[in-house]
Amino acid sequence: MLAVHLESGHVRLRKVPLPRVSEGFARIRLLAAGICSTDLELQRGYYGFSGTPGHEFVGEVVAVSGTNGDESKWIGKRVVGEINLACGHCEWCRRGLGRHCPTRTVLGIVQHPGAFREFLTLPVRNLHRVPASISTEEAVFVEPVAAACEILDQVKIPKGERVAVLGDGKLGLLVSQVLQARGARVHLFGRHQNKMRLVEPAGVTTEIVPKKLPTAAWPFVVDATGSAAGLSAAISMCIPRGTVIMKSTVHGLVAIDTAPAIVNEITLVGSRCGRFEAALPLLASGKVRVRELISGEFTLDRAPEAFAHAAKKGVLKVLLRPA
Amino acid sequence: MLAVHLESGHVRLRKVPLPRVSEGFARIRLLAAGICSTDLELQRGYYGFSGTPGHEFVGEVVAVSGTNGDESKWIGKRVVGEINLACGHCEWCRRGLGRHCPTRTVLGIVQHPGAFREFLTLPVRNLHRVPASISTEEAVFVEPVAAACEILDQVKIPKGERVAVLGDGKLGLLVSQVLQARGARVHLFGRHQNKMRLVEPAGVTTEIVPKKLPTAAWPFVVDATGSAAGLSAAISMCIPRGTVIMKSTVHGLVAIDTAPAIVNEITLVGSRCGRFEAALPLLASGKVRVRELISGEFTLDRAPEAFAHAAKKGVLKVLLRPA
Repeated sequence: MLAVHLESGHVRLRKVPLPRVSEGFARIRLLAAGICSTDLELQRGYYGFSGTPGHEFVGEVVAVSGTNGDESKWIGKRVVGEINLACGHCEWCRRGLGRHCPTRTVLGIVQHPGAFREFLTLPVRNLHRVPASISTEEAVFVEPVAAACEILDQVKIPKGERVAVLGDGKLGLLVSQVLQARGARVHLFGRHQNKMRLVEPAGVTTEIVPKKLPTAAWPFVVDATGSAAGLSAAISMCIPRGTVIMKSTVHGLVAIDTAPAIVNEITLVGSRCGRFEAALPLLASGKVRVRELISGEFTLDRAPEAFAHAAKKGVLKVLLRPA
Repeated sequence: MLAVHLESGHVRLRKVPLPRVSEGFARIRLLAAGICSTDLELQRGYYGFSGTPGHEFVGEVVAVSGTNGDESKWIGKRVVGEINLACGHCEWCRRGLGRHCPTRTVLGIVQHPGAFREFLTLPVRNLHRVPASISTEEAVFVEPVAAACEILDQVKIPKGERVAVLGDGKLGLLVSQVLQARGARVHLFGRHQNKMRLVEPAGVTTEIVPKKLPTAAWPFVVDATGSAAGLSAAISMCIPRGTVIMKSTVHGLVAIDTAPAIVNEITLVGSRCGRFEAALPLLASGKVRVRELISGEFTLDRAPEAFAHAAKKGVLKVLLRPA
């Protein structure tokens, strides 16, 4: 079967054997996958990664290996999958926080081959059925929408509260819609009116980043810029005792002036992956619209081209599909 | 009267007129004051400061100007004073958070002359009587103990929870004792066994900073190092979903790797001044011992010498008293 392989900055294609299905795992035929900014960072050498990336996917279960008898119910089902492969036994797993399990592997990121291949494997317990009301291309967004939902698992944002989101990339557009759908009044600051326009139907107000951003103005600020300057801007925009959510990783060191965060007693919350349970109903309800975020589709054999396209300025989500 | 004056890095003495007492204010005769690390930073040009510093003080009220009739009850009383001079009317003040009032001045820091002078002024509403059970030299510590208590106003630390404190300077020693007194199990990491010994009677366990600090080991970590490296160390020591309290300011930019904070979903809480109400009972109870933290006493006219002494390695609190 065909698999995408990243190594030393190059995107290559390989013919590899069909993956073995360990006990408790499912083999899943890829229907569609999305290229995430993390995949582009993996290409650039983040985590010293080499291997098959891809963690946003929709697939169809074709084989299951297990002992508790109900595996067969999965066969033929359209699924998405939680990306952290947790041990299931440790303190974190017992608390329902397998995504922090210290011995976890992570689909397409840490020691578990990713979804950019014709067939992938995941533990059955990671799978979620995709309801018929969500199309395959929309379901590719379950993982990033879950990451946006994670904010609400970590931080209590009162209904009607004002939230500023910085950054109109894929993540900023999803975070804006999710928070707006869950009752916040979101104001998105970005640099591309054509991107920001996509979330205005959700009720998000938008603004091209002004020369001078407002200071001490927002009780909640989400940094989804992916830039080193974003965090400092977010801290400066936040009111005393307010909360800044750090949603985007930046490769390498970030220089920040900690004094404003301390003087204004700001809380900074690091935020990563989220539960799929929260994301599926939001997509099904149509309150979070993702179709317009798709900037291109490529077959797996054109993955090098797809990665190059995804890295272009102004491009949002790029999908990969089997040929 | 005599007043200390900082300008362009120099500590000088000036003869100045007795300060006028505006309505609602008290004139306070200085009994003792403490030199804080912030005062040393003001000397180095932090906030572009020039003027009279000093915000840790004990004094005796000698005059009060007011209209509501009960001013006279303050005359002759030994007092400490909250350092933020708030408007009293804005949203922050109404919420009891005058220390975040946007138009505040701050005793000895922002546009209100500080306590390193024979007589100072503060609004009567900022004053707290010092109970007889607290000596004047101990009461100098009410302000920094309140700053340590502030952590507990911001973050819920369950009884018996493990807390790591980084830094065995004045603040680290106070924070360790306060959190221990309020039910946490504190482990202090520092570089000076002679300093750390001072907090062992309070039940704090102590450890010389090892070559390799433990990673992902503590649910709460307080950075009281005052060093740029402290914050990164604190983030790395903190367990997933744990909390890092940023208690010490560092002058200038701090380079941090935000990835571990995001991957482990750590919450960073900036923390500054606190309410005096919380600090007074802790000092009165003897659970927080401060007397051993005094490394020297100087009369006001020897302030230049006192500042030089306070800046020396290994020196803890230096007191100033009127001649």
